[in-house]
Amino acid sequence: MIRIICPGKTEPKELKILQDYYLMLIKKWTKIEIIEIKAKSYKDECEKILKAIKYKPILLDVEGELFSTEEFTKFLLNNLNFGIDFIIGGPFGVCEEIKKFKKISLSRMTFNHNLIRIMFLEQIYRAFNPKFNK
Amino acid sequence: MIRIICPGKTEPKELKILQDYYLMLIKKWTKIEIIEIKAKSYKDECEKILKAIKYKPILLDVEGELFSTEEFTKFLLNNLNFGIDFIIGGPFGVCEEIKKFKKISLSRMTFNHNLIRIMFLEQIYRAFNPKFNK
Repeated sequence: MIRIICPGKTEPKELKILQDYYLMLIKKWTKIEIIEIKAKSYKDECEKILKAIKYKPILLDVEGELFSTEEFTKFLLNNLNFGIDFIIGGPFGVCEEIKKFKKISLSRMTFNHNLIRIMFLEQIYRAFNPKFNK
Repeated sequence: MIRIICPGKTEPKELKILQDYYLMLIKKWTKIEIIEIKAKSYKDECEKILKAIKYKPILLDVEGELFSTEEFTKFLLNNLNFGIDFIIGGPFGVCEEIKKFKKISLSRMTFNHNLIRIMFLEQIYRAFNPKFNK
């Protein structure tokens, strides 16, 4: 079970279409869910993210551990049975309590938080697709 | 002047819309052009990419130098006046002759070559936008 916890809806609609496309592909291999957090403030967002966590929490963070596609595939498949909650922060980042979780990084570059969702889904898709995960 | 040389059209249409959106934003700051290479074969593609190069060639490659957004911003702005030709390979990668160029990397992970275009345009946009480039 993979869950991606992130604040707000995926915008613009082009990214939402790509998100739905990758979710459809990934669902052939595993259960995956996007948990969108609706919050009134930064503090509220932090509390709601923490409350939403059910499985092993992993924060996607520019300063986290860098994986190759192959390394990420191993990491994902090794942890899948226990369930993983990946957290993607919003435009203002995440609070200190969330920053204490294990952090993995897609890039040393900072990307738009909506684009990151698609990049990450593409990587999850690759992890399951034997054509791409090596 | 920034040129991005890459094989084939940007697909699906959602990525093309995002590409056009970022190009429109970046053009407020600099000249930028996407050079799409139409080729009959891998060899033909390699030759046409080499022929298309006019400025300093930089290959986007998973094994290239990793930059943060801040480092990439400096690199881009320092080289902009001379003109830069960024090369993004297709699904089969690039030939040995192109692999000899300076290589920079957006991530240690491999991404879909069409998605990479959007990720890279987003990074160029960030480099020019004072809200994001630090």
